[in-house]
Amino acid sequence: MEHIKNIAQLQALAEKHIAEDYFHYLEGGADDQRTLSRNITAFQSIQIRPRRLVDVREVDTSVQILGQDLPSPIILAPVGWQGYFHSDGEIATARAAQSTGHLMIASTVSVYPYSDIAKELERKPWFQLYPTTDRRITKLLLKKAEDEGCPVVVLTIDLPVAGNREKHIRTLTQGLKNEQKQTGNLRGLLKEGETPWDSSMTWDIIAWLSANTQMKIVLKGILTHEDASLAVKYGADAIIVSNHGGRQLESDLATIEALSEITDAIAGKIPVLFDGGIRRGTDILKALAIGADAVCIGRAYCYGLGAGGQAGVERAIQILQEELVRNMKLTGVTSIQQLNRNYVRLGMFK
Amino acid sequence: MEHIKNIAQLQALAEKHIAEDYFHYLEGGADDQRTLSRNITAFQSIQIRPRRLVDVREVDTSVQILGQDLPSPIILAPVGWQGYFHSDGEIATARAAQSTGHLMIASTVSVYPYSDIAKELERKPWFQLYPTTDRRITKLLLKKAEDEGCPVVVLTIDLPVAGNREKHIRTLTQGLKNEQKQTGNLRGLLKEGETPWDSSMTWDIIAWLSANTQMKIVLKGILTHEDASLAVKYGADAIIVSNHGGRQLESDLATIEALSEITDAIAGKIPVLFDGGIRRGTDILKALAIGADAVCIGRAYCYGLGAGGQAGVERAIQILQEELVRNMKLTGVTSIQQLNRNYVRLGMFK
Amino acid sequence: MEHIKNIAQLQALAEKHIAEDYFHYLEGGADDQRTLSRNITAFQSIQIRPRRLVDVREVDTSVQILGQDLPSPIILAPVGWQGYFHSDGEIATARAAQSTGHLMIASTVSVYPYSDIAKELERKPWFQLYPTTDRRITKLLLKKAEDEGCPVVVLTIDLPVAGNREKHIRTLTQGLKNEQKQTGNLRGLLKEGETPWDSSMTWDIIAWLSANTQMKIVLKGILTHEDASLAVKYGADAIIVSNHGGRQLESDLATIEALSEITDAIAGKIPVLFDGGIRRGTDILKALAIGADAVCIGRAYCYGLGAGGQAGVERAIQILQEELVRNMKLTGVTSIQQLNRNYVRLGMFK
Amino acid sequence: MEHIKNIAQLQALAEKHIAEDYFHYLEGGADDQRTLSRNITAFQSIQIRPRRLVDVREVDTSVQILGQDLPSPIILAPVGWQGYFHSDGEIATARAAQSTGHLMIASTVSVYPYSDIAKELERKPWFQLYPTTDRRITKLLLKKAEDEGCPVVVLTIDLPVAGNREKHIRTLTQGLKNEQKQTGNLRGLLKEGETPWDSSMTWDIIAWLSANTQMKIVLKGILTHEDASLAVKYGADAIIVSNHGGRQLESDLATIEALSEITDAIAGKIPVLFDGGIRRGTDILKALAIGADAVCIGRAYCYGLGAGGQAGVERAIQILQEELVRNMKLTGVTSIQQLNRNYVRLGMFK
Repeated sequence: MEHIKNIAQLQALAEKHIAEDYFHYLEGGADDQRTLSRNITAFQSIQIRPRRLVDVREVDTSVQILGQDLPSPIILAPVGWQGYFHSDGEIATARAAQSTGHLMIASTVSVYPYSDIAKELERKPWFQLYPTTDRRITKLLLKKAEDEGCPVVVLTIDLPVAGNREKHIRTLTQGLKNEQKQTGNLRGLLKEGETPWDSSMTWDIIAWLSANTQMKIVLKGILTHEDASLAVKYGADAIIVSNHGGRQLESDLATIEALSEITDAIAGKIPVLFDGGIRRGTDILKALAIGADAVCIGRAYCYGLGAGGQAGVERAIQILQEELVRNMKLTGVTSIQQLNRNYVRLGMFK
Repeated sequence: MEHIKNIAQLQALAEKHIAEDYFHYLEGGADDQRTLSRNITAFQSIQIRPRRLVDVREVDTSVQILGQDLPSPIILAPVGWQGYFHSDGEIATARAAQSTGHLMIASTVSVYPYSDIAKELERKPWFQLYPTTDRRITKLLLKKAEDEGCPVVVLTIDLPVAGNREKHIRTLTQGLKNEQKQTGNLRGLLKEGETPWDSSMTWDIIAWLSANTQMKIVLKGILTHEDASLAVKYGADAIIVSNHGGRQLESDLATIEALSEITDAIAGKIPVLFDGGIRRGTDILKALAIGADAVCIGRAYCYGLGAGGQAGVERAIQILQEELVRNMKLTGVTSIQQLNRNYVRLGMFK
Repeated sequence: MEHIKNIAQLQALAEKHIAEDYFHYLEGGADDQRTLSRNITAFQSIQIRPRRLVDVREVDTSVQILGQDLPSPIILAPVGWQGYFHSDGEIATARAAQSTGHLMIASTVSVYPYSDIAKELERKPWFQLYPTTDRRITKLLLKKAEDEGCPVVVLTIDLPVAGNREKHIRTLTQGLKNEQKQTGNLRGLLKEGETPWDSSMTWDIIAWLSANTQMKIVLKGILTHEDASLAVKYGADAIIVSNHGGRQLESDLATIEALSEITDAIAGKIPVLFDGGIRRGTDILKALAIGADAVCIGRAYCYGLGAGGQAGVERAIQILQEELVRNMKLTGVTSIQQLNRNYVRLGMFK
Repeated sequence: MEHIKNIAQLQALAEKHIAEDYFHYLEGGADDQRTLSRNITAFQSIQIRPRRLVDVREVDTSVQILGQDLPSPIILAPVGWQGYFHSDGEIATARAAQSTGHLMIASTVSVYPYSDIAKELERKPWFQLYPTTDRRITKLLLKKAEDEGCPVVVLTIDLPVAGNREKHIRTLTQGLKNEQKQTGNLRGLLKEGETPWDSSMTWDIIAWLSANTQMKIVLKGILTHEDASLAVKYGADAIIVSNHGGRQLESDLATIEALSEITDAIAGKIPVLFDGGIRRGTDILKALAIGADAVCIGRAYCYGLGAGGQAGVERAIQILQEELVRNMKLTGVTSIQQLNRNYVRLGMFK
């Protein structure tokens, strides 16, 4: 897939390969999809301030997150139903993560069960959790992940109810096959048509998780400094700044707009991961400069998955990694740790 | 009408059902219609700051306004000439308000008289008043409403003269039938072609109204903190922030832009209702967070009226009520009273 | 021309009636015409703050400028070569000014001489002056105007050299007839092809004018507070804020953007007239609220001239005067003198 | 080429004459080309504040830079591979610089060697340097330039690695002929396919250059006040504010946005040249008013080169010089030295 030069080209190729309904599922956002597009365009209001005459022959993109040494700050975000995009689903993604050395986060609603995904990876994927109203099922999910060696559970906290995704409501209901309505982790655990997600979760969930697993706990979906501070207070090990890819609340708030107030509040106490709108190496560099410790990509690698299975995911990762390295060199930094807010400015003529 | 997923789809359907002239009458605004469209787009400059890990299984949308318990902050604004949009006119609207439990405000220039509308509703509609130069007619209108049990008169104060609605001037004059030039409340009270509205009203009108009715008095059309303070000073029981749906003065001012200075000035002394540009549940949530106690929808339910009579109005109300509930859950609030300015921010990177 | 509802419709009609070359001459601006369009669009960043419950049955639009009582703050700006737009040229404009009672400013480069124009008007037009390098010609022009009873000379100070009007350079050179290359005031005074305008003028011109005429002196073309203060210092009787209709310097500066710093600097010492981009009554109201004492319209009435001669100019004036009156009523003011900056605000959410 | 009225027309003509691949090479920028276009559009946020009643018969555009008297602040920026645009390549450019009296900066990667270019010019061109990893080659290049009388070396510091120019990657690789892959200065010095540029340069390069040449040293590619201050500290004789024409890092930062922080930091200690997005005389005037001592044009003259060889370059220079003179007159300044920040403002309603 060397002829594919950027994520936008990969997206165009994915549109050709993925069935229309499923492509809409991948692309869709809440309501009028303004938050969805603002996640991407808001990066354009951030300017990079490149420094010159730095020896950039060697660039180190490694980061350390929750005690793990990662060769790159690019993490594969949890994305459900990857079987919609390619018949190999999450297995292809896992193999690409393995071959490129990147960290993967596996979704509760993956088509393949966590155990199958974990088999493909030396560095065990983190497990993303949607807690069920019936906590016995949640415990079962946690135990299965932990038994496979999963070190971290990523609790999604921005889905107390499903968002208003009109676009894929319109299209997805027609093309669905029955066997695709179930996911690997939950197969056999739910009654038909049951929506098991818990709308009652409060900050006590962290204590409950701590009591039921040894895995570290990451909260995914923080958008305010208030909740960032509460995450620290209640003992979360890390957070992910995320608006669920613009699929939940149309809030006219891009995640990159929310990032600075959050990293200010966290002040280095726990790692801050970032998620939303990353399509270029410059986006990654901007998020890291504002204070994120790593970034998660979602649609970007799913375009690769749709476009070419494992090879496509590898290409997506490779493109962004190469862009990150090139942009670090052009910005005059040789390690992720050097990036700080002096490398960006916001708005014109400041 | 379950296949209609949002107000925009309802608007498209209404355009097919309503005669062109009358649809332009519904859609039109003053001058170049910039205030009209800004009423809608200005909401996009307000960002919601959603909070996480709140138990949102139960959400209560009830509000108390002027001593009345309302199950929802969504009120049906006074809209005249509803016979243009559907042969059942205001009767269809009233039946939808009754079936869904929402408050309706009936217009002076309704095609059906207030008494007919009131018959359809257990919770009697508020009566919107355009005072006539001949105050004897005004007294008659007030008495008729009060006799039907109307608890509140809504005085429109932004129509000292008609706005420059070029769009429907161009089209409406052709298609009109004679019997549609009269309204139920004024039939027989005016000479042919007479324009009875009073351009001389001053703040004394409140004292005059108090002397002539027991109904509570709401001023509709406030756009500045100065007038908001005067409303309190002169004894209004509530105000509605409104620019008459962008139909009067092209001022390049959206109502949502004016809201904060007004709720600051009112500081809770009397209820502040909001009107203008609401097409989504997020719009409602933003207006309430900035400080409105309730919101009025106008075109939104008239699209429903045109699209399907009573069932269409019910669908419009249902869509917005469902979006409000969903968005409250996604924002982490369980009652309207919890909303405050911490739930919104204005502009980027603040 | 009653079917014409606004200046935009008049503009469209003018485009049909005026030969293409001459219409481009009327419409064209400097360079890429951004200042030209910004003159118009910048008004959209100013919001009107309308006040309610004011008795607006009677509205008085009269203003007093340089000792003259004018029934309206709308003045006909000097526009040259009006013969391009209609065979009656400035005579049609003068007759419309006479019939509607508005003040006219006659251009040095009018097709008809000042004396012919003045004959049509009881209130003698002001005379706009481009000083010639040969000051004897300038003296002659001043004397001719003064002899006809002209009370005010308007000195244009933003044309030391011609602007870069590429659009009409491209088109106008083809269609021109010889007799149209001369103007009434200068006929016989210049050699063929001579460009007589003076690039050497300094602030001493005011003293020179004072020594050579009894007429009051107005400076047209001020865009900065520094020059506004100098105008007062050197004894100008009034100024006109103008960028020559966007035809001279493409500065990305709309006149309405420059107005407030100028009226601040002038602080009422002399009248401030405003010119640039007025197409609606709201534009007039905004300029007056920011501090202008009157406004000049140029293209707006020339559209009328092209569309229908005297009747077209009358329609242009009538439209704007009616819009001004309506908008004053809708804003809650009954005289021009009541307007101040409380009636406007700039930008969102202030 | 008198019928060509502005740079945009020259660009359109160039597109017809230059082979598609090579035109894309000229036009292309990094990534999504937003920095490329922002370089141009950012000028529109700067407004000129023109002053009136200044005697502008005589305007002097001369500047003194590094001891050289230049008749104009317009300098021909180093552009490589000019043979792509016209068969005469840099020779045509040099002849145009000679005939118009403007300073030229010759590129390391010019198709013709420096000695051939220098022969055409009385005022010897400055030599732009990309240092090679093998410093012996760099020394050779410096010596050759110095031997021809070159007074200044311009060190490009924003190309530690090549930018991501997807557009011309896509097209240029097809059309290239072998002999065009070599440049005059480097012919015979490099192995086939070798990329000799040095990614290891640090601020020590200035001392190394000082030790190896008598030429003055200019740093090209500064975008921050920090690096501007370092340039002074390490002994650079001048700097050029540049983002390599938007071809290196897509940073969403236009050079004109970066200029003011840099001229503030430099505070007159050394000359500041400016490069990026200049297409009009107003752009030049704005850059000089913000504090640049001179400006470099690149694509603007290359359009001329493509459109008509030497005559086209002359026309590009002539257009911009005439626009600069006209705009100085319309702004009320008679020398470059008079320009300062009072002649501009940023944003609306300040």
